[in-house]
Amino acid sequence: MTPDEFRRAGHALIEWIAAYRERLSDGDMPVQAQVRPGDLIARLPSAAPEQPEPFDDILRDLDTLIAPAATHWQHPRFFGFFPSVAPLSSVLGDMLSTGLGQIGLSWQASPALTELEQVTTDWLRDLLGLPATFSGVIQDTASAATFIALVCARERASGYGAARGGLQAETAPLVVYTSGQAHSSVEKAALLAGFGRMNVREVRVDDTFAMRSDALEALVAEDRAAGRRPCAIVATLGTTATTAMDPVAVIAPIARRENLWLHVDGAMAGTALMLPELRHYGLGLEAADSIVVNPHKWMGIAFDCSLYLVRDPEHLVRVMSTNPSFLQSAADAEVRSYRDWGVALGRRFRALKIWITLREQGADAIRARLRRDLSNAQWLAAQVDATANWRRLAPVPLQTVCVRHAPPGLEGEALDVHTRRWAQAINASGAAYLTPATIDGGWMVRVSIGAELTQREHVEALWRTMRAAAAASEGL
Amino acid sequence: MTPDEFRRAGHALIEWIAAYRERLSDGDMPVQAQVRPGDLIARLPSAAPEQPEPFDDILRDLDTLIAPAATHWQHPRFFGFFPSVAPLSSVLGDMLSTGLGQIGLSWQASPALTELEQVTTDWLRDLLGLPATFSGVIQDTASAATFIALVCARERASGYGAARGGLQAETAPLVVYTSGQAHSSVEKAALLAGFGRMNVREVRVDDTFAMRSDALEALVAEDRAAGRRPCAIVATLGTTATTAMDPVAVIAPIARRENLWLHVDGAMAGTALMLPELRHYGLGLEAADSIVVNPHKWMGIAFDCSLYLVRDPEHLVRVMSTNPSFLQSAADAEVRSYRDWGVALGRRFRALKIWITLREQGADAIRARLRRDLSNAQWLAAQVDATANWRRLAPVPLQTVCVRHAPPGLEGEALDVHTRRWAQAINASGAAYLTPATIDGGWMVRVSIGAELTQREHVEALWRTMRAAAAASEGL
Repeated sequence: MTPDEFRRAGHALIEWIAAYRERLSDGDMPVQAQVRPGDLIARLPSAAPEQPEPFDDILRDLDTLIAPAATHWQHPRFFGFFPSVAPLSSVLGDMLSTGLGQIGLSWQASPALTELEQVTTDWLRDLLGLPATFSGVIQDTASAATFIALVCARERASGYGAARGGLQAETAPLVVYTSGQAHSSVEKAALLAGFGRMNVREVRVDDTFAMRSDALEALVAEDRAAGRRPCAIVATLGTTATTAMDPVAVIAPIARRENLWLHVDGAMAGTALMLPELRHYGLGLEAADSIVVNPHKWMGIAFDCSLYLVRDPEHLVRVMSTNPSFLQSAADAEVRSYRDWGVALGRRFRALKIWITLREQGADAIRARLRRDLSNAQWLAAQVDATANWRRLAPVPLQTVCVRHAPPGLEGEALDVHTRRWAQAINASGAAYLTPATIDGGWMVRVSIGAELTQREHVEALWRTMRAAAAASEGL
Repeated sequence: MTPDEFRRAGHALIEWIAAYRERLSDGDMPVQAQVRPGDLIARLPSAAPEQPEPFDDILRDLDTLIAPAATHWQHPRFFGFFPSVAPLSSVLGDMLSTGLGQIGLSWQASPALTELEQVTTDWLRDLLGLPATFSGVIQDTASAATFIALVCARERASGYGAARGGLQAETAPLVVYTSGQAHSSVEKAALLAGFGRMNVREVRVDDTFAMRSDALEALVAEDRAAGRRPCAIVATLGTTATTAMDPVAVIAPIARRENLWLHVDGAMAGTALMLPELRHYGLGLEAADSIVVNPHKWMGIAFDCSLYLVRDPEHLVRVMSTNPSFLQSAADAEVRSYRDWGVALGRRFRALKIWITLREQGADAIRARLRRDLSNAQWLAAQVDATANWRRLAPVPLQTVCVRHAPPGLEGEALDVHTRRWAQAINASGAAYLTPATIDGGWMVRVSIGAELTQREHVEALWRTMRAAAAASEGL
C-alpha cells in the first residue's frame, strides 16, 4: 500500500469508524452479537488470498461480516464485565503508534517511545495522587503485571534464586495470600510463577467482600508455624465481582512487619483515585511494593494499557533483565531500558495514546465522566433498594451494582435458574449486556456502568428492561 | 472527541502518516534519532493537561517533538536488529481494532475477534506449509510464547504440578536445553518459569552456529545420570546473531525418544517457510510440540503479532485456564476461549491486521518481497567476500549478513574497538542503522535487510557507507 493508496483507504476507514460510533450512539444496534458459534468462520475463506483484493471489498466485509459478529463494548447499553473505554482520540493514538512503526527494545531503538512512556506514566501516577517514589511502565494487562509482581516477590524472598537453581532449589515453600474475591489472574500468575496451587492461600472476606486482615494474620502465622515461608500478599482495590476494597491501610503494616511483598491490584478502582473525594480508597498504597492500575478500563485509554508501578525499579530490572550484546548501546547507563521492566523485548509505542488522549480530553473532563458514572450507579442502587423483590448484594463504592431479583418462594437452584434466565434473555435480545456471576454460592447479575456513551437515560432504560425481563422469567 | 471531531483529526492524521512515510521514502531523514538522553523529557510538561488542547497542537508536536526522537524502523536504510515491517494496510488494521474497541476475553464478548483469530492463524499456518495438526493463537511477542511453551513443558513433565505444590514440590530438577546462540528470551522464560539458571543447559554449536545434536544428546545423558530430569529443548530457526538454523529434523527424534518438549523459536526464520524453495529449513517441525513465528517481523503484519502454534491445545488450555463465573457463557463448549491460550485475559482484536494486510497485499506479493531481500543479502555477501580485509562471519541462509572489517595488524581488543567505532559512526551519522553484536568472543556488525522500502540501491549505498566508515576509523 503506497502512501496515496493509504490516503484513500485511510480516509474511507476514518469515515467508517466515525459512522460506526454514530450508529452506536443511535442505540439501534443490538449490544451482543446476534450470531451462533461458527457463523463467521463459515463465511470466511479457508485460505489466505494469493492476490490483492480491493480495499472496498474489505470495507464492505466490515459491514456484512465483522460488525454483526461484534459485541459492542462501546455501546451505551453495554454494562458487562468492566467498562473498557476506547475514546476516538485513543484510536488515533494507536493508529499513530502503528504508523510510526517503532519498536521499543532499547532507548536508542526509539528514544521517543522510551521517554514519552517515562513522562506519561509519571503523569498517570500523579493524577492518581500516588507518591513520586513510584516508577511506572506500561504492560499489556493486569494479568502480566501481577505475574511480574509475584516473580519479583519470589526472587526477593529467595535471594535471587533464579540465578541459581530457581524455585526447584527452594526447600520450604513460598506462600502467596489473596482473598477469594481476587481476580482469577492472581491464582493464574502464582501458578505460572511456579508457586503451586497448594501455596496460594485464600484469605476470608468480611460482609463487604473485603479481605479480613485478622484472617490474613492468622494464615501467615499458621504457615510460619508449619515451616512454610510467607512471601507475598495480593490485595485488591475494586474486586471483579463487586468492586470491594481490601483495606490496604491495614494490610500494608502487616506486610511490612512480616516482610511480605505487597502487590495491589487496582486494575479497576485505581482510576477512581483521580477523584479527590475517593482518594481515601488508596490509603496505605504508598507502602505497597507494586501496584497495577488499568487506564484501559474506566479511565479511557484504549486497550491495551496497564500501568505497573514499582517502588524499587532496580529490583525489577535485576529480576527481568537480559543484556545480550546486540541490545547494548552507548546510552545504556543514562536511560531506562523498558525491556527489563517486563516480559516482552519488543514493545509498542503505547505512550502515544496516553499522551494524545489526555491532551485531547484534559484530566478534568475524565473526572467529570467518572462522576457521572458514579452518580448513575447510585441512582440504580437506589431504585433496586426501593423496589420490592429486588436485592442489592454488595455496597456500591464505584460504578458497579450487583443485584438479584428474588420473588417470594424462589430460592436455591430455582432462584439461580431465574437469575441466569432473565440476564441471558436481556443479553440475547441485544437490549443491553450484563454479566451474571456468582457471589456467596449463588448467581447474581453485575451491572457495570461506565461506557463513554452511557448517560442516565440508558441506565433508566436498563432498569425498565431488567424489571420486564425478570417478570417474564418469573412467569415461565 | 465526537465522531465529527474524529473525522477532522483523523483525516489530518492520515495525511500526517502518509507524509511521514513519503519522507522516509525520500531518504533524507537520518535513520537514528539525533537526540541525547533526556532531550525529549526536558521538552515535555511534567504534569498531564487539565484542560483539552487543540488537536492541531498535537499534530505540530508530532513534527517538532516525536518524529525527531524516533529511530525510523521503516526507513529504507534501517538494517538493525531484525526488520519489523509495518505496511500501511497494517496501520489501518490496528486503527480498526481500536476503533471497534472489542475486548476478546470470551467468545461471547466478541465472536468476531475469536473466530477471525482462528481463521487467520490457520491461514498463516497453511502459508508456512505446516500441518493442520497445529492450532494457532496470537501472542504479543515470541518472549511470551516461549515462556508459555516452557510452562507447558514444565507441567507436562511434572504431571500438572501447578495444581499441587508447583515447582517448589519437585525433588529432582527439571532441565531446559538450548544453544548458546538462542535468543535471550529463552533463558529469561526459563528463569520466569522458575527453572533456575543452573538448570538451563547451553548446547554447543557447530561452525554454522547451529545446535550440535551430539552435544545435546551428551548433555541429556549426563543430566539423567546425575539424577536430573531433562524437560524441554528450545531449538531456533534463524538465531538472532547470524540467522543460524538448528537442525530440527535431527533434534525432533531425540526429543521424542527422550520424551522432551520440543519448542521451536522460528520468530525470524518462520516467515521464510512461505517460500517453497526455503521450506527445507522447516524439516522436522511437524514433530514439534510448539512453534513460534513472528509475522510482525519480516512478514509484515505490524507489531505486535506473534503466532504461537501448538500440537495439543487441550494441554495448553489445561495449563493456562481460569474459569471464574463471570467469564462463563452458554457458548463455552462450542468455541475457543483464547484467554486460556495465553497469559492475558483481555485481548486486542489483532486478527484484523492479519486479515486486512493479507487481503490488501496477497501472499504472492509478500513472497516477492522476501525474495527481493534474500537476493539483496546475497549481493552484499558477495561484495564482502570479494573485498580485501572484509570478512563474512557466518553463512547467509536468509537476509542477514554478519561482517567484520579486519585490516592487517588489527586484532583482539583493537579490532573490537575498530568494529564498534565504524558501526557507531554510521549509526550516529543517521546514514544507516546497523547492529553491532558479538560472535565467538569478538565484535562484528549485523546487516539485517528487509525493511519494506529497502531496494538494491539502498544496500549498495550502505556498502559504500560501510567501506568509507571503516576507512575513516582505520585512519584514526
